[in-house]
Amino acid sequence: MKASILTIGDEILLGQILDTNSRFIARELSNLGAETVEMRSVADTRTEILRALQEMWPLADVLVITGGLGPTKDDITKNALAEFFHTTLEFNPTVYAWLEEMFAAQPERLNAYNKTQAILPKNCVALRNLKGTACGMWFEQNGKIAVSLPGVPFETEHLFPTEVLPRLKTHFKELKLSYQMVTVYDIPEAELAMRLDSFERNLPEGMRLAYLPTAGLVRLRLTAKGRAIEKLTQSLSDLQQALAGLSFVEGEDTTEGIFAQILKDSGCTVACAESCTGGHIAHLITSVPGASNYFLGGIVAYANTVKIHVLGVNETDLQTHGAVSETVALQMAQGARRVTGADYAVATTGIAGPDGGTPDKPVGTVWIAVAGPGLAHARKFLFSHTRERNIGKASVTALRMLMQAVQDKSCQKA
Amino acid sequence: MKASILTIGDEILLGQILDTNSRFIARELSNLGAETVEMRSVADTRTEILRALQEMWPLADVLVITGGLGPTKDDITKNALAEFFHTTLEFNPTVYAWLEEMFAAQPERLNAYNKTQAILPKNCVALRNLKGTACGMWFEQNGKIAVSLPGVPFETEHLFPTEVLPRLKTHFKELKLSYQMVTVYDIPEAELAMRLDSFERNLPEGMRLAYLPTAGLVRLRLTAKGRAIEKLTQSLSDLQQALAGLSFVEGEDTTEGIFAQILKDSGCTVACAESCTGGHIAHLITSVPGASNYFLGGIVAYANTVKIHVLGVNETDLQTHGAVSETVALQMAQGARRVTGADYAVATTGIAGPDGGTPDKPVGTVWIAVAGPGLAHARKFLFSHTRERNIGKASVTALRMLMQAVQDKSCQKA
Repeated sequence: MKASILTIGDEILLGQILDTNSRFIARELSNLGAETVEMRSVADTRTEILRALQEMWPLADVLVITGGLGPTKDDITKNALAEFFHTTLEFNPTVYAWLEEMFAAQPERLNAYNKTQAILPKNCVALRNLKGTACGMWFEQNGKIAVSLPGVPFETEHLFPTEVLPRLKTHFKELKLSYQMVTVYDIPEAELAMRLDSFERNLPEGMRLAYLPTAGLVRLRLTAKGRAIEKLTQSLSDLQQALAGLSFVEGEDTTEGIFAQILKDSGCTVACAESCTGGHIAHLITSVPGASNYFLGGIVAYANTVKIHVLGVNETDLQTHGAVSETVALQMAQGARRVTGADYAVATTGIAGPDGGTPDKPVGTVWIAVAGPGLAHARKFLFSHTRERNIGKASVTALRMLMQAVQDKSCQKA
Repeated sequence: MKASILTIGDEILLGQILDTNSRFIARELSNLGAETVEMRSVADTRTEILRALQEMWPLADVLVITGGLGPTKDDITKNALAEFFHTTLEFNPTVYAWLEEMFAAQPERLNAYNKTQAILPKNCVALRNLKGTACGMWFEQNGKIAVSLPGVPFETEHLFPTEVLPRLKTHFKELKLSYQMVTVYDIPEAELAMRLDSFERNLPEGMRLAYLPTAGLVRLRLTAKGRAIEKLTQSLSDLQQALAGLSFVEGEDTTEGIFAQILKDSGCTVACAESCTGGHIAHLITSVPGASNYFLGGIVAYANTVKIHVLGVNETDLQTHGAVSETVALQMAQGARRVTGADYAVATTGIAGPDGGTPDKPVGTVWIAVAGPGLAHARKFLFSHTRERNIGKASVTALRMLMQAVQDKSCQKA
């Protein structure tokens, strides 16, 4: 199956937003075994949309379109689609009922603008959008499919897997591709590649291993096509053997997801004390459902007074060594344990940037400390990126250090 | 001047990487006053590249191409460009001298792969790349321009402003497009659209208003073309009048960016106490450089023990009213002020989900409280989305409430 992706929106062409929808859809299609042959972005005008539809429709079996469906747009996309598919727009009572349900708590907000969302091209199947007022549209013609989705990324990311993928699987029966994911942490991609060299060379025909490194993790995707699908279980087990001794989990996961699994299994409780990461560690931990089972809380000690008065950092040490120091990081971690009562705590103190660097402690310098029962250690890092990257890298690294400490010694409660 | 952007690479079509080059180039072109009419991504094959060149060349005055130039590629892009422009590839001694200079310290690394980088289509102007081995290429034909750049984002981000922009400015003297942004907060898009309906209908010819809603804010972009540019100041002032009474700022900004501006101007210090938002408010505040000027710190009080022992929430109140209550929210905000010494504090307590909801307090229920000098109030919200959205919405709403409180009464320090 071949696919093409069209995104509609002036804000993309102006460079104001990054087109994440195309990437999301391309990845989903690729996982399904479909081949994306073109991605295109055009302006929100009838002429441009029609030109794109005419040129892209012959290219592939499926055309996925996002954007141009909001309540304030002049329904240009819907009109263009109706024109392209030789049909007209009409009021769709089912879609209107969905809108009424969505606005049940505040019916006065179902205004004239929102109501236009129930007017759709006649020949399309409406795809229910639980995250917004614009529904998706599914068109079939001569065995080919066009799907139109709203441009808001979280709406597309909801609609595509729930409403589009199952229909594509039913429509294109020959899609035969299966994959397994393994997430490896604590090893750089190049080293991992050397280690898996012979595994990769001995893979059966139709089987492929892909490396998807991200934020300090390496996700491995083992993909099988056609007959190789039957051999996927065996190859996955071979892969696990080849990874023996490394830290890895089956499935696609994030650092915070892996952290959650390890913490749940450990029976330990944790806390954090954050200066330069400014709450991001706590945010990552609490982004996973069920975090309240092991996360007690955190102190964002941005000002030195908070480090001293809330976490009990020694004022003289703070003056002698500076806030960005091993001593302060350790006292912060110990303070977080003490005030929250957690078994383990991690602390960060550093210079996120862009200002505040010195020759001694340049932007990107971060001390991370972990404290636990009979345990206290700290490490210095130099991340050297932008503020956003420094905060992100320091937070993920802190989670890993905390995870490692918990893994080394789980907590058996009396 | 019209422009189109072509990115070449299988990794984009597979959804493995996000195409940041197109966005970068589109923004640079837009700032220059050029109008990007299409962005396209195609595979790294002769047929696909030639098809794209043939279809895209007539669309615009400038075609910017990135990707397909690395030393391990089979020079498919260069060959396709040579074929398209009816020329051949030849060795370019200037480019070879650049490579020699680049490898001066390690001449042995100038291997066969790298040497192919000096072979270019005859009729192009080579653009020197100081960040990599693949140079850029500038083609002129019948007054139109094609530019080919390497796909590595930091190479494109170096080459485009230094080598491409100045040439474009010289070549196209008539570049004319201008826009102004206004960010409106505290009003849904559909309501704003109704309010601006007559403003929009009375816009002069060549002027357009676009709505770019994101995370509870609506960015408005007022774009003027050609002669309408002279009227942009007047239309912007009309827009501001039409928005009178709403909360808005000129320019493109995020809630945390607007918050930072208001806090800096106020001279106030702030803190937060977070239960269901789990550190996200602190993270948003500290994601803006310079936050240490007004943000003292925060307490992530996930466990009730932390609410009681760190923030001083009354244990009996906690049992009587429950953690998700007005009383506890208020005490948390007051506690955050007390322990950090901040002028103002905001607190959140709620049910982020997916579990933990009850008929009385369903998932998405959040109490947000603000405390300040002679001020303490709380509001209940029902966000009702996923965990991620609940955390995001509650955090942004909390920032807005805190911002509102600070705006109402700034802090004049002795």
